[in-house]
Amino acid sequence: MQKNRLEAFSDGVLAIVITVMLLEMKVPSGSSLEGLRPVLPLFLSYVLSFLYVGIYWNNHHHMMHAASTVNGVVLWANLHLLFWLSLLPFVTGWMGENHFAAVPTALYGIVLLCSAVAYILLAYALVAASGADSRLRRALGRDLKGRWSMALYAIGIPLSFAAQWLAQLLYLAVALIWMIPDRRIERVIRDEHH
Amino acid sequence: MQKNRLEAFSDGVLAIVITVMLLEMKVPSGSSLEGLRPVLPLFLSYVLSFLYVGIYWNNHHHMMHAASTVNGVVLWANLHLLFWLSLLPFVTGWMGENHFAAVPTALYGIVLLCSAVAYILLAYALVAASGADSRLRRALGRDLKGRWSMALYAIGIPLSFAAQWLAQLLYLAVALIWMIPDRRIERVIRDEHH
Amino acid sequence: MQKNRLEAFSDGVLAIVITVMLLEMKVPSGSSLEGLRPVLPLFLSYVLSFLYVGIYWNNHHHMMHAASTVNGVVLWANLHLLFWLSLLPFVTGWMGENHFAAVPTALYGIVLLCSAVAYILLAYALVAASGADSRLRRALGRDLKGRWSMALYAIGIPLSFAAQWLAQLLYLAVALIWMIPDRRIERVIRDEHH
Amino acid sequence: MQKNRLEAFSDGVLAIVITVMLLEMKVPSGSSLEGLRPVLPLFLSYVLSFLYVGIYWNNHHHMMHAASTVNGVVLWANLHLLFWLSLLPFVTGWMGENHFAAVPTALYGIVLLCSAVAYILLAYALVAASGADSRLRRALGRDLKGRWSMALYAIGIPLSFAAQWLAQLLYLAVALIWMIPDRRIERVIRDEHH
Repeated sequence: MQKNRLEAFSDGVLAIVITVMLLEMKVPSGSSLEGLRPVLPLFLSYVLSFLYVGIYWNNHHHMMHAASTVNGVVLWANLHLLFWLSLLPFVTGWMGENHFAAVPTALYGIVLLCSAVAYILLAYALVAASGADSRLRRALGRDLKGRWSMALYAIGIPLSFAAQWLAQLLYLAVALIWMIPDRRIERVIRDEHH
Repeated sequence: MQKNRLEAFSDGVLAIVITVMLLEMKVPSGSSLEGLRPVLPLFLSYVLSFLYVGIYWNNHHHMMHAASTVNGVVLWANLHLLFWLSLLPFVTGWMGENHFAAVPTALYGIVLLCSAVAYILLAYALVAASGADSRLRRALGRDLKGRWSMALYAIGIPLSFAAQWLAQLLYLAVALIWMIPDRRIERVIRDEHH
Repeated sequence: MQKNRLEAFSDGVLAIVITVMLLEMKVPSGSSLEGLRPVLPLFLSYVLSFLYVGIYWNNHHHMMHAASTVNGVVLWANLHLLFWLSLLPFVTGWMGENHFAAVPTALYGIVLLCSAVAYILLAYALVAASGADSRLRRALGRDLKGRWSMALYAIGIPLSFAAQWLAQLLYLAVALIWMIPDRRIERVIRDEHH
Repeated sequence: MQKNRLEAFSDGVLAIVITVMLLEMKVPSGSSLEGLRPVLPLFLSYVLSFLYVGIYWNNHHHMMHAASTVNGVVLWANLHLLFWLSLLPFVTGWMGENHFAAVPTALYGIVLLCSAVAYILLAYALVAASGADSRLRRALGRDLKGRWSMALYAIGIPLSFAAQWLAQLLYLAVALIWMIPDRRIERVIRDEHH
């Protein structure tokens, strides 16, 4: 019961984040194809952020599905994650409007890094609530993918000032790694059913 | 369980898309009836897009109802559909502000075409997850309506440059065809109940 | 099942309508109390529209609770109602920014009237889906309140041009009448439980 | 059943309030770190309001979980609470844009005070609906935390004109007090389970 409402609230926030991001894409004044050109970097940064919100929604979905109970700490850990994800429209817009300039690219990486940390804190809170022997605990195992992506964000942030496009590539690479859904959790859930 | 959350998230995104579209309709400065005139094309493009979001919501509703299971591929196919539908407010606003000019009308058709393709990919992903012998498989049958509408969009896009109003009529015609809910699925569901 | 998703989607749209309306209330530039004065009419029109969205949500809630089944016609009747309610932020903002001038006040009344007609069409669609002998049919009975409010809106629209404040009072009066929840439906539901 | 829909609607409104607040944070024009400076007070006021929406969502969650039934009065008491919380984006934006000036800080306090009063009225309405002997009645007990926070808001509002930063500290202090979830309700629910 409680879990359902936490999921519904998170879905609501993520659904709005994904949609409101497009409000930064101001309708161009002319009707020519040329008029779309200034919108292009905003569109590309929107695509990247859409991927990230999709990834978080998918993995959040899987993780909550494996969790058995939630408590007050989980509720706040979840709100903490939503806080960082709610900053995505702002940094996406800033990065897009400045054609992926160094400082906005670094700030984008910081928001991604903080979101990743918040996601891991939420995982810890859920494991603590479910018990060390729980299905979720076994499902998460040694969180290699989470550690790798945090390391790549940490490299991407200073890299923005040296080679901003390489930082963008790093962010995209991490997104593509994560688009493969969390097989670990899917496997454990499947195993339980047999 | 999993299906419910996918439906809830899609509903959230579609509900926001439908409402945020109206934010493009800026409140006119004067209080006279004349002041409403520049808003009229935006209003008309809003009506068309509202119909489309309604159609997608209705058919999504029916298709998910007939589906038995979802997996990681379905989640991403669904996000892919939501991505294209989330672009509707932008192209609706651009088309409305430029009084249905050629380029925005063509771009609007492209977003409609990509949404239709994404919907069919979602249908394939659902059938693959449910099995070739599933209720959904039989319900979808030979998807004539889907093929026709894609063909009409594909005609509408180049037509925008020759006769933009004919392209608009095509888009409206496809919408009206789809407003008749998917009887195929309704029939199969009813048959199962008897 | 189907009913749940229709309710969830309607809740989503109404929740966004209620919140997005406030985006019309632009943050004033100064920090003095004087700076709030131009926002006051927008705030008052927001209060009136908030009441109306609350009334529609409450009565929609009650009516759907009494309904037993939904079909394709009900889905479209519901979308039709949501369409008119989604226009509320625009007319609210226009009316507020022009200090309740005649034309915006009349347009506001037209949106209220269309919403009321759409609500009654939804009620008819639900009764048709549930059967003439259904609980909902008996619950709605002779819809005096609905008829009265439509009559008052129909008076308010031309009245806007003669005495705009009287029209506002009429709109407010109808809102206050409706804030009393639909006892008819509550009674029938209670009777069924005994 | 009815309770679920009230929760879902409230979640929707709160999710939008939390996200729409960020739309006040306009993307700065330059790409330098300096460009972020005017956004900083808006960001800080956003953090404070995010905490408050999180607190209200958490406590609303707990209180509704303990409630057994809802009626028409509860629905309106809930809408009344959502009305005040829906004003948060406006006062947050006004306070942030004016660097926490006196009048916006006082108005922010007024909205917090009205929200707190509305929350207590909702609690009374729920207790009245559930009966004086209900689980919720015992769970709420003597609402010391609610009374204290209202007293602190009432001090903060006039204090804004003398020492605006002290008023901000008061608002933050109340938020931190509330971030500790309502142990009273959690305890009673746990006790019932044993």
